[in-house]
Amino acid sequence: MISPERIEALEQLLLDLNRVSADAILPLFRSDHGLEDKGGEAGFDPVTMADRGAEAAIRQRLAEVVPEHGVIGEEYGEDRPEQEFVWVLDPVDGTRAFIAGLPVWTTLISLRWRGEPVLSSIGQPYLGEVFLGSPAGSRLVRGGDSRALRVRPCFGLSEAIIASTDPTAYFEADERAAWDRVRAAARLARLGCDAYAYAMVAAGTIDLVVESRACKCWDIEAAAPLLAGAGGVVTDWAGRPIGPNGGQIAIAGDRACLEEALPLLKSAAD
Amino acid sequence: MISPERIEALEQLLLDLNRVSADAILPLFRSDHGLEDKGGEAGFDPVTMADRGAEAAIRQRLAEVVPEHGVIGEEYGEDRPEQEFVWVLDPVDGTRAFIAGLPVWTTLISLRWRGEPVLSSIGQPYLGEVFLGSPAGSRLVRGGDSRALRVRPCFGLSEAIIASTDPTAYFEADERAAWDRVRAAARLARLGCDAYAYAMVAAGTIDLVVESRACKCWDIEAAAPLLAGAGGVVTDWAGRPIGPNGGQIAIAGDRACLEEALPLLKSAAD
Repeated sequence: MISPERIEALEQLLLDLNRVSADAILPLFRSDHGLEDKGGEAGFDPVTMADRGAEAAIRQRLAEVVPEHGVIGEEYGEDRPEQEFVWVLDPVDGTRAFIAGLPVWTTLISLRWRGEPVLSSIGQPYLGEVFLGSPAGSRLVRGGDSRALRVRPCFGLSEAIIASTDPTAYFEADERAAWDRVRAAARLARLGCDAYAYAMVAAGTIDLVVESRACKCWDIEAAAPLLAGAGGVVTDWAGRPIGPNGGQIAIAGDRACLEEALPLLKSAAD
Repeated sequence: MISPERIEALEQLLLDLNRVSADAILPLFRSDHGLEDKGGEAGFDPVTMADRGAEAAIRQRLAEVVPEHGVIGEEYGEDRPEQEFVWVLDPVDGTRAFIAGLPVWTTLISLRWRGEPVLSSIGQPYLGEVFLGSPAGSRLVRGGDSRALRVRPCFGLSEAIIASTDPTAYFEADERAAWDRVRAAARLARLGCDAYAYAMVAAGTIDLVVESRACKCWDIEAAAPLLAGAGGVVTDWAGRPIGPNGGQIAIAGDRACLEEALPLLKSAAD
């Protein structure tokens, strides 16, 4: 167990890292961000100076404040991933939204303690939002305000708002068919949100998020502490815990809603 | 011609209407918004107290300030649509995004002069943004800042970022096939943005938006002055001007990009 005092100090560090990251990213949003395509023949895979600059800035702050901690990030790889505390970073999740000028990209930061994510944030600097996940309870920090986050009840898919970023581009054929089944049973589907949709589950405005191949550890680890602290659940498409390598994910506010979706996803589950 | 002084006064009124509308909507965002389904057997068609309260508030302000002007709105119908000046209102475009807690719904207001839209705004109150379209040039007003909006060059679809809200739900089969052709030729597609994507074309971060049946006059009229003032173009899928009843729309920053898309859309054009 980490002491409540330690948790509080780590929460403050997490908010500080969000500020450091925002300072690096915001001047480049809707501006000249040095877009490069690192996808090559595999298809368009954008990266910008915002991704790299923000990750470098966060790593520098961590080196100053907690030099004994390990770091894993999308752009600069692994630095002592076996340490007791390890930070997992994706400063611009949703780079496609970022380059399109859409304010639904997010900054994902999570902290592993002895291999398990215990603290996390999903930040949207242009909106001034940090959705903070903590064993002390999850909350939305915006400006000087802070309000508790809580999932909402949802007793079945027929009343559910569901989300996935881009089923056409991100799902294999069998995954797409599984998504179509879930969508047909749901009240409403929303697209294009990336990890911002995870925060909406914690906030009680979306009931279920289904994603697949885009999920590396830095894409998904920030979800678990945020959802746990808000009363939600994160599993893979077979209902199992998410491993450190990501993969297919299902994020739900109410387990009853998830239990109805899992049989529809099952045939496409890895 | 409307005089520059009159345009400036009308711009100030437009910004004031955005404030009035924001005051009615924001307390209900991510809160108890009194969701109703007005779709019945035709499918889910949400409306909230935000839609109705904001339209009522805007109409009241117009009645106080410019009682001689006509008004057309999504919720409360037509009031003297034959007047020289007529306001066209959709206080919450993207009600589905609104009820999902996603900050990409918008407040659409346009002003017709002798039947033609001449001034407009696309506002996102949670972000504090008003994208203002005017014969004096389009601009983004946020907080105390104002910056000019300008589309970007895009010489072909292979370098274009394109957008549509939800091709699965909103397009007929032939329209869907047309969208798939455009998407296959484009660099990147984004989904789920509703009218916020129109503003991104004016801001030069998205190159082409393609939408269809959702477009009534209040869904689309705000696009024309905003895009005209930013150097862009709005047509239907056959390349013709948009009529007062909306329909299929194509919004582009660069006409070269539109000219490449139109042949791909043609077989599904009304």
